[in-house]
Amino acid sequence: MNNFYKCSYPTQAVLVTCNDKNGKANVITLAWHSTISKKPPLYGICIAPSRYSHDLIATSKEYTINFVPFTLVEKVNFCGTHTGKKTDKIKETKFTLEKVDNIKTPIIKECYAHLICKLFKTVKLGDHSLFVGEVLNVLFDEQAFSNDLLNNDKIKPCYYLGDNNYTTLDSTRKRF
Amino acid sequence: MNNFYKCSYPTQAVLVTCNDKNGKANVITLAWHSTISKKPPLYGICIAPSRYSHDLIATSKEYTINFVPFTLVEKVNFCGTHTGKKTDKIKETKFTLEKVDNIKTPIIKECYAHLICKLFKTVKLGDHSLFVGEVLNVLFDEQAFSNDLLNNDKIKPCYYLGDNNYTTLDSTRKRF
Repeated sequence: MNNFYKCSYPTQAVLVTCNDKNGKANVITLAWHSTISKKPPLYGICIAPSRYSHDLIATSKEYTINFVPFTLVEKVNFCGTHTGKKTDKIKETKFTLEKVDNIKTPIIKECYAHLICKLFKTVKLGDHSLFVGEVLNVLFDEQAFSNDLLNNDKIKPCYYLGDNNYTTLDSTRKRF
Repeated sequence: MNNFYKCSYPTQAVLVTCNDKNGKANVITLAWHSTISKKPPLYGICIAPSRYSHDLIATSKEYTINFVPFTLVEKVNFCGTHTGKKTDKIKETKFTLEKVDNIKTPIIKECYAHLICKLFKTVKLGDHSLFVGEVLNVLFDEQAFSNDLLNNDKIKPCYYLGDNNYTTLDSTRKRF
C-alpha cells in the first residue's frame, strides 16, 4: 500500500468553513479530523499549509465543522478538489450559509450537524498543521439524532474511501 | 446535545495494542484517532491519562492500530468497556497475537489492516493525550483492498455510534 492512511479509510468527509479577511466564506472538505478532549471540548482538524483554508484559519482563528449527508456527495467532492484561491466554492455549490452566535464564520445549512470552533492551539506535525478548535457550540438537526446518537437508519453521512471515492453507512445497529 | 463529540460519530472503532513492561500485550478500543501527516507518516490516537493503555504507551513508546471487521463487534465493545488493569483482554477475547518486524508490540491477526507505530510525539490537549505515532509499516489483508481502496462491498469495518452502539458501512460507492 503506497499510502498508509488509506487503510484507515473510510473516515467521514466533513465540510469546514472559514472566512477570509473580508468576511467572505470558503469551504474545504477534510477526511483527517477527530475529537481530542471532552473538557475543554476540543476537536482537531489536519490541513496542509499549501491549502487556501490553512492561512485563513491561522488568521481568523475560527472555523465551523459541518457534517454532511451523502446526498450532497458531489458537492463534498467538489469542495475537496477545488481551491478557494481560484474558485468561489460557496457560489458554485450553492450552499446556504447561516450566521451563528459566538463567531463570524457561518455554518452550511444543508448539513445535519455543526461544531462552532474557536482556535485553541496549532500544532505543526509533519507536513500538516493540526488545528485544535475549542467547541463553543453545537448545532444540529433534531431529527438526525435520538438520545444524542445518530439515527443511522435515516441519516446517511458521507464517508471518504480515498481517490475521490465515497460511501455511506448501512442501517445496522448493534447495541450492548 | 450533552456531548458535542457524538455528532461526529460514527467514527471507526479501532483496536490499539500495547505492551506492558513484561512484554504482555493489552488492547484498547478507540474512536478518537486520525491520520495527521503523509511525510513523515504520522497517525494520532487520543487516550485519557486514566486509561491503563496510556502509561503503557508512554513507557513502551510503541503501539499497533488494528482495523476490525464488524463481525468482531462484540469483542470490540468488550475491549472498550473493560480495563487491562483488572482483565486480560487478549485472553478473554481469544484474539490471536502476531509478532511483527520493527517493534515488540504484536498485531491482532483477526483484523484486516494494521499500522505499526513508534511514538513520535506526545501532546497533552485538554483531558486527553494525543499520541502521535510514526507509522513504520503497514500490514493488510490483500483481499480487503483493491488499488489501495477498501473493498467496502466485502469488508465491513466497525463504526462507533456512541453509548456502546455500533454500525457499519453499506456497499454503495460513488466515484468521481
